[in-house]
Amino acid sequence: MRRCIKCKGEPAIDLKSNNTAFCKEHFIEYFLRQVARAIKKYNMFSSDERILVAVSGGKDSMALWDALLSLGYNADGLHVDLGIGEYSTGSRRICENFAASRGARLYILSLEDMYGTNMREIVRRTRRVSCSVCGTVKRYLMNLVVQQKGYRVVATGHNLDDETAALLGNLFGWQEGYLARQYPHLPSTHARLPAKVKPLVRLGELETETYCRLKGIDFLADDCPLARGATSLAYKELINSLEEKMPGTKQRFLFGFWDRGRRNFTDTPVELKECSLCGQPTTAGTCLFCRLMQKAGLDPLIQPQVQEM
Amino acid sequence: MRRCIKCKGEPAIDLKSNNTAFCKEHFIEYFLRQVARAIKKYNMFSSDERILVAVSGGKDSMALWDALLSLGYNADGLHVDLGIGEYSTGSRRICENFAASRGARLYILSLEDMYGTNMREIVRRTRRVSCSVCGTVKRYLMNLVVQQKGYRVVATGHNLDDETAALLGNLFGWQEGYLARQYPHLPSTHARLPAKVKPLVRLGELETETYCRLKGIDFLADDCPLARGATSLAYKELINSLEEKMPGTKQRFLFGFWDRGRRNFTDTPVELKECSLCGQPTTAGTCLFCRLMQKAGLDPLIQPQVQEM
Repeated sequence: MRRCIKCKGEPAIDLKSNNTAFCKEHFIEYFLRQVARAIKKYNMFSSDERILVAVSGGKDSMALWDALLSLGYNADGLHVDLGIGEYSTGSRRICENFAASRGARLYILSLEDMYGTNMREIVRRTRRVSCSVCGTVKRYLMNLVVQQKGYRVVATGHNLDDETAALLGNLFGWQEGYLARQYPHLPSTHARLPAKVKPLVRLGELETETYCRLKGIDFLADDCPLARGATSLAYKELINSLEEKMPGTKQRFLFGFWDRGRRNFTDTPVELKECSLCGQPTTAGTCLFCRLMQKAGLDPLIQPQVQEM
Repeated sequence: MRRCIKCKGEPAIDLKSNNTAFCKEHFIEYFLRQVARAIKKYNMFSSDERILVAVSGGKDSMALWDALLSLGYNADGLHVDLGIGEYSTGSRRICENFAASRGARLYILSLEDMYGTNMREIVRRTRRVSCSVCGTVKRYLMNLVVQQKGYRVVATGHNLDDETAALLGNLFGWQEGYLARQYPHLPSTHARLPAKVKPLVRLGELETETYCRLKGIDFLADDCPLARGATSLAYKELINSLEEKMPGTKQRFLFGFWDRGRRNFTDTPVELKECSLCGQPTTAGTCLFCRLMQKAGLDPLIQPQVQEM
């Protein structure tokens, strides 16, 4: 393995995509610089803004939370406890420990506490694709916390690999609306909805994992037990095999999309109305969350019991 | 293997992408119907037009030539003998035998006869990517034959796999101009240039090979010895692994591009001038063919010696 490009010291990571290697210290510096660069390039937020970070306990969201704090941002965490056995207890403990050790604020919402059930059961009862149900529920609850606690920006840990796989999926289906909306910074479209930002888009899974390892940040390495066989995994495998042959492919593909490709797709703006049940912004008469909860025999109007620590 | 969907007879091919199987007779019928459908959908040519088919001796161009003749079209062949050892002598013999057996007209151009050298040598001298040099030379010579013999349409054997791989490559590099120009029927852009059509775009490699096998059409199975390691092969592998998991992916991706995706990309029209050396239409002062031939120390102005049989 080649030595650190900055100090010729012991390499901690070799980045084929960038044709370079870094020691521990210079990789952490590089990682934070890439996060700062994405925040600036896509005009994500200012230094005095309060940011809510959606944290699962996995390597990406933990690296993101740590990086934002390290860069001096006012970043609070929000964790949704899905109640999926050890996977969820482990995830939650990791978030709590990190918050405690860093003196950071963490909000926790537990499906078990609020609805007396868990995500596995909700998915089973709705008979829908699990990642889609889980995403809908988490986005909805996050919006409620955003409103209750007065945030205007939500940051998620989507990385280069996630975004590249999503882009490929959107292209394979020629989803023009999704293509137009795939961007690292989506401004708020309604007074009650936050802007959404993805500060890790310049960094891949190898980088986020290495960052956690080098900085001693604990994270849950297991994939979500409900996500097995997701098509996004097939797209990731495919892009990784191409990246292996032609290093830098992911970056060229994704950044080229944002620099040149995306402008070719336009999104038809939709009017947001109030959900007939819960009153939250929706494009339909009754919002997807309320319909899913009803299908699962649960009360969509239960207010979130936010535990704060 | 399931039985023929039409007659429940012995299956000759199982098409997972279409979730169906065919016997020999009904597959040949299906194959010709797909060719006819592409010709009609993309308005390629009328039944009384004279069509020049670029034939390499491989399964795709041989299947195309046979299919056009079987559908009653006036299809003549053009083969360029690249002079690459047994690969070229074998390819040429296959084209000649087919033409003789079907009473079809075949034009042959031999690099050895015209320039006293072969494609391997030209590639070596120009120090360029072989597929790019070979494509430039073949397109140029084809245009000369088109002018000399008065054709207005050239058909090539590009199939579903070729087009899908090319689409993925164009997307990975966000080549907007290439994306706008990737279409099964490109009308003529100059009085001296033919329209270009690809009647096999609805059929994959498995289908063209099976068609040849079932109809007893001889073809050269070897890949071109100069094309080894071409990136298009990496893209093909990758799409095939996805097709394996999600049958029908290629068709959805490519046809979706032509139905919905492609309209988002626009091509900047370029003015065609006359090459300062040969006088053929070009966007540059001296055309790429003349520059390549000069770099290879060959005379670009040698007129094609067309052998007709």
